[in-house]
Order: sequence, then C-alpha cells, then structure tokens
Amino acid sequence: MTERTGLLTDRYELTMLDSWVRDGSAGHGAVFEVFARRLPEGRRYGVLAGLGRLLPLIEAFTFDAHDVAWLTEQGVVGEGAAAYLRDFRFGGDIDAYPEGDLYFPGSPVLTVRGTLGECIVLETLVLSVLNHDTAIASAAARMVTAAAGRPIIEMGGRRTHEQAAIATARAAYLAGFASTSNLAAGLRYGIPTVGTAAHAFTLAHESEEAAFRSQVEAQGAGTTLLVDTYDIADGIRTAVRVAGPALGAVRIDSGDLADEAAKARALLDELGATDTRVVATSDLDEFVISALADAPIDGYGVGTRVATGSGHPTASMVYKLVAVSDDVGGPLRPVSKKSKDKVSVGGHKTAWREYDDAGLLLRECFTVPGTTAPAGAQRVQVPVMRGGATVHAPDPEEIRASTAAALRRLPPEALSVAAGTPYLTVLAASTEEETA
Amino acid sequence: MTERTGLLTDRYELTMLDSWVRDGSAGHGAVFEVFARRLPEGRRYGVLAGLGRLLPLIEAFTFDAHDVAWLTEQGVVGEGAAAYLRDFRFGGDIDAYPEGDLYFPGSPVLTVRGTLGECIVLETLVLSVLNHDTAIASAAARMVTAAAGRPIIEMGGRRTHEQAAIATARAAYLAGFASTSNLAAGLRYGIPTVGTAAHAFTLAHESEEAAFRSQVEAQGAGTTLLVDTYDIADGIRTAVRVAGPALGAVRIDSGDLADEAAKARALLDELGATDTRVVATSDLDEFVISALADAPIDGYGVGTRVATGSGHPTASMVYKLVAVSDDVGGPLRPVSKKSKDKVSVGGHKTAWREYDDAGLLLRECFTVPGTTAPAGAQRVQVPVMRGGATVHAPDPEEIRASTAAALRRLPPEALSVAAGTPYLTVLAASTEEETA
Repeated sequence: MTERTGLLTDRYELTMLDSWVRDGSAGHGAVFEVFARRLPEGRRYGVLAGLGRLLPLIEAFTFDAHDVAWLTEQGVVGEGAAAYLRDFRFGGDIDAYPEGDLYFPGSPVLTVRGTLGECIVLETLVLSVLNHDTAIASAAARMVTAAAGRPIIEMGGRRTHEQAAIATARAAYLAGFASTSNLAAGLRYGIPTVGTAAHAFTLAHESEEAAFRSQVEAQGAGTTLLVDTYDIADGIRTAVRVAGPALGAVRIDSGDLADEAAKARALLDELGATDTRVVATSDLDEFVISALADAPIDGYGVGTRVATGSGHPTASMVYKLVAVSDDVGGPLRPVSKKSKDKVSVGGHKTAWREYDDAGLLLRECFTVPGTTAPAGAQRVQVPVMRGGATVHAPDPEEIRASTAAALRRLPPEALSVAAGTPYLTVLAASTEEETA
Repeated sequence: MTERTGLLTDRYELTMLDSWVRDGSAGHGAVFEVFARRLPEGRRYGVLAGLGRLLPLIEAFTFDAHDVAWLTEQGVVGEGAAAYLRDFRFGGDIDAYPEGDLYFPGSPVLTVRGTLGECIVLETLVLSVLNHDTAIASAAARMVTAAAGRPIIEMGGRRTHEQAAIATARAAYLAGFASTSNLAAGLRYGIPTVGTAAHAFTLAHESEEAAFRSQVEAQGAGTTLLVDTYDIADGIRTAVRVAGPALGAVRIDSGDLADEAAKARALLDELGATDTRVVATSDLDEFVISALADAPIDGYGVGTRVATGSGHPTASMVYKLVAVSDDVGGPLRPVSKKSKDKVSVGGHKTAWREYDDAGLLLRECFTVPGTTAPAGAQRVQVPVMRGGATVHAPDPEEIRASTAAALRRLPPEALSVAAGTPYLTVLAASTEEETA
C-alpha cells in the first residue's frame, strides 16, 4: 500500500550508482553504517526512532517506467543504471538498534549490508526518516521525564509539514507522550487522539456560557473547557456553572501558567470541582515543564517545541561506507575517510552494552571483525531486514514500553534536563580495555 | 490526483464542528485570518511560502466512508457532523498574499471566508503547510542575499522528513536557490537537480584516482569532483590530472572553508584549471556564507540549516476567527480574544502597502470594514480561491521572480543578515494616521 519511494533520493546517489554500474563495482559487497558523531548540544542521550516507518519505505523503494524515463532524460543515469533501477528492489540485510532504544555518539544504530549499488541508493531515505523521527523522540523523552508521570498531549502538527506531523505524533508517542491531536496518526498508528476546542469556538458564540453549553451538550461534562478566551476566573466560574462539578478539565493557554494554575486549582476547589483537572498548554517544553513541577497542573499539551525537536529539529546521523569488497563476492576491507574534521572509523561494527548489578547502563562499545567483545556484554543490534524483507515489526505499544524500560536503565543525573555531556561515548572495545 | 487530506487535522477542529452542527451555527458566516504576531528573533522580514502546495490540498480536503466511520467510532463526531463530513468540500473564498511575497508581524497573509464549519476544519492543514514552507523560504531568502549572486544548491533532504524534503526544495527554490539535490522535487516541480558524488564513492574504489576516473567517464569532465576524502591538495592534483583543465568544479566539504578555498583556487590556477569552479559545502547558513564573501568560492551547497529554517524551523503563524455572523446569511461582527499575552485584533482586514519614489517599501497597514485605505496605497492580497476552486496558480518560476522583485523593494539594511527588529509592523490604517 505504501507509495513507491525511489525518488525520495538525492541525485548523487543515482549518479554514483551510474558510475558503479559502468565500472562494474555496483555488485561488489558493501557495509554502510548510520551513526551520529555527536548529540545535540547539552543532551545526555538520544532516542532512536523511525525504524518502523523506514522498513516499509525501503520495501517500497522502487522506480516505475515513468521515473526511469525521467531520470534518463535528465541525464541522471545512462542505459545501464536505467535497467538496474527498472528492476530494483533492495535485497540486502539490515541490523539496527531496536526502535525506541537509546543511542550515544558513535552508536552504530543501523547497519546495511548488500551490494554497493543497492546500499548507496538508500542513503537519503534512511537518513531523512531516522534524522527526523529521532530528533522528535529524543526531545519528547526529555519532556516525558520532566513531566514525572503527568500525561502529555502531542499537538504540534500545525507547526510542521503536514506529513511530518503524523511522524511527529508517532515518535512522541513512542517516547512516552500519552496522546496526540493528530487524527491521521490516530488512524494510522492507533495512537489515542484528544482535543476539544479552540478560542474560535468560544468567540463564535454569543457568549462564553453559550459556547460552554454547546460543548458540554455535545461532549458531555467530562470534556475539557478552554477558559482563557476572556478572563480566566470568570471562565472557570462559567465552566463549573454549565458543566457542574463533574467537569473533566479546564485548559489554560496563556499567561503565567504556574500562577494561573494555582489560582485555577483554588477556584475549582472552592466551587466544589475538586476532581476537575487543570491542563496547561502554550509554548511548553522540557525546561518549562520542569519549572512547573510544583504547580497544580494535571496534564500538559506540547506543540511547537516537540514538533521542532526542542531546538534540535534534526538528529545529525550520517550514513557511511565502512567496508567494501573489490570483487563480487570478495572479502570486505574496512574503509574510512580522512577529511579534516570528519574522520570516521572503518570496519563493520558490532555494538555491545554492559550493565551494573542494578541494571543501570555502564558502557557501550563496539567490536570489528577480529576483535573480541567484553565478557558478559549484550549485543545491541537486532536483525530487522533479511534479503529485503522486514523481520522485525514491533507495534507502537511494544516500542513505547521498551523506550520506557531503556530510560529506566539510565541514572537520574543522565535523565535531568539540565545541559550536560553525553552520558557515554561509544568506543572500540579494545580502546576501552586500554584505557581501563 | 492529490490524496485526500481531511484527516491531516487536529481532533478539536472536528469536535468543534460537531458542536456547531448540533447547535445550528455550522452554517453561520465566518472570516478566519492567518498571521504571525512576530518574526523569529532577529529577522527583519519573512517570505510567505506554501500557497501553491496548500490550495490543491484544500481542494482534496475530503473524508471517505472509512474515515467517517472511524471518526464516529472514536467519538470525534456524532451523526450530524458525520453526515456533514461525508459530503464535505470547502466551498468558500480565500484571498492571500501572493506566494513568495514578504510579510511582517500582523500581515494578514491569508483570509478564509465561508461558513463557520467549512472554515474551522481547514485550520490545521493551512497552518502546517504555511508554517513549514514559510520557515524554509524565509531562511533561504537570507542565504540567497548573503551569497550575492553565487548559486546555492539545496541539499537538506536527508535532514528532514522525507516528504518535507520535497517541500523544502520547493520553498528554497522559490526564495532564490539555484537547484536542489532532491529528485522528487525535480520531477514534481521542475526544479533543476544537481549532485555528483559522496565520500563513499571515493572510498569504494581502490584509489581516489580510480574513483575520479570512473566519475569522469560517466559524467564527463564538466562534473564536480569531491576532493577532501583524504588530502585536499592531493585530491585536486589527481582531479585535474584525471579530468584535465576542463574539470567543472571541485567540492570541499570539510575544514576551514575560506582557507581551503583559497588554497584550492591557487592550486587550480597553478595547474591551469583556471575555469574550474570551487564549490563549498559543510554546515553553511546565511552567517557562514556572509563570512565567506571574500573567499574564492563559486557556489554553495546548503543542507541542514535551510531544511531547519536556520534556527527557526517553523513560522509562528496562527489561524484566528476575526468575524462571524449570528445567523445563516446574517451580518458579520468582528470578534477577538482577550487572553493575557495573546490579544488579537478583530475584524476582516484588508492589507495595503505604500512605496517611496524609488519603489522601496515604506509601510504596510490594514483597514477593516468602515475604515479607509491611505491614498495611493496598493492592495496586497489577491484572490486565490473562489467557491472552493483555485483561481491563482503561478508556476515556480513566476513565484521565484516575484520573490526576487519583492526583496529588491527592501533597503539594504533590511536585507542584512545581522540581527535586527522587523523592518515594519502592520498596524491599522487609522492607527498609522494617528501616530503620523
């Protein structure tokens, strides 16, 4: 059902393919790795997301006759590469960190093995999906931690591309958000959707009371009434008068939220609406949510800041060739570039983690062929695609549970929203031993 | 051909509709306006983008039987609103600033007129498209100005959602970028695509020389060779040896770009490749491009920073009810909310601009029904949709030309990338007169 994705690709992927088809190396063996050299400034960990979206998009990575004719006409590919693309389906293997797992600088979060030709053409798509979704999930996880158990609604769809909005809702949910405002995400991924009314709803009625009455009639007293269109205290009095003390919640979307929430709580209690919840929205992020920890707020709505990765709208993951063979079926040799500020480490890496007795994450390291993993270390990657077919497809609920579990394996200081250095950096196992 | 877009919507748009269908006000008249209260910090102007994508998405704003059944089952809508959505097509009118035009705080960039029901449901989609595309175009225009005529390639697709990548290429092109790496954007919008090779291409060959030879055989000597995989000076010597002095360009993607470009230019000239261009990529934005103004660089490639709006990945546009009738066909009354930090101005606004004798933009103001435009002022909005049908569909080349023309109407200080306040703020025409 997924629309074909072959053209969601940078031109140079196909011009490289064209050269490799001409010079005969398109069928040589290759290993590409996805990793981030660094985390966004101040972040202590990242949360990998996007894998569940990516694998179907890779299965749909094809070109129809019209695409290939256009690529030929544009001079992107010659006849050889055109024939190659006409029949193209990725047939290689992919291993990856489970979606929702943590990652750190150097973590080989995804490894693609196959022929040079079939691996190179996936680069742009792989990075688009992982960089976007990971940026959202990494920011969202910090907000969830800051909220300390109070539910957060994702409502940032209007602040990002209309299709990115759906991926945003998904990534935020995986990271622990409770629900989304985005209906398409609800239908596509089964994420709970919520939302009641905007200021326009109140403005369109002759009075705030008429608006609240209309909403309560349609949605029941358990609804959330937006009380700050005119005066918050008046709004709350009107809300409780209309809905009664069974009113579900009041939402406050402006002003000093700590102060307004405290006043709202006191007024609701005074009016007998002791079970009515106070929901706060308006430019929230992990820092504001932390600062509101002592305010009597029962739930948050986060929009702009989660949809834009809280200042870091993209993860800086790259897709690098780490091993290649010089013949079809020949042995793989490690490769790495030597560019001044972008040196990379060659060789096909296997990542390992070590935990302490309490289950806290202590170390992550990698081995390359010929080196040995530390005793007792656990392998991080799992097989996700074999021969081009997806072999790992957990549902959002499973991913969400494993993200929560992964976060519990970090010590409290690593979970703080305060700026810090990465909790760990991933080094070669042998390097670790030398420095130990 | 556009897939239906009805569910690219926040749940509350449809619960509001549900209440309005129940209380009889869904058919009342309404005017909604899109505007930004502020520009991103330090920005002097914004460039509106997304309109050419938005109008077809509004025409495709429908719900099929499956969507409506799901909405009903989820409790989003009752029977009345379900029937309303089953037949839904937006049938109202839209006026807007031409795509690619400038905007400032308070500019009513888009005005939607119709019934309350048909206008409210568009909110999320309208904002998603305009906030995303405008953020990209606004950042891109500053980069184009900083580049002072040297061409810029958009290559940020791998840093953003795979569909947002296409919109990013489009918005950057409208703002003056020369080309994109994104093939889907090339096919869909006719934007020139470019790109030659990545470091993986060189690494996959037995030597840099073998890689360059393969690329030149496939692409011709006019290609761009990436020379920084190992040592830049060695790379340039090899490149000229392989391609000859007719080599199109060398690309440098690491190190101190000003220094490396100067050395590359000197070496190319020494080797007789005086027409070979130097192209720089690697974390460029308007600030870095400005700082490189004196370097012998002939073209830039910009990725991450344009795809993320150069620090401001979303425009802060909102969609606000400004006038409503209390009956079907009744007179419109202005409305505005009084929330503490989010006061809005009611009434259906018409925007006007005044220019000086040299054609420079002097002022932008608005009138509401019953107030008068300044003598000689020019109306900014144009009709873009009538009765739900698109009546304004300039092609990307036309939009690009009008963006360039609009930028020429700003004085040099407003075009500087240095931080500043908005070049102007849009006020009521009468307010302007009072303060004049």
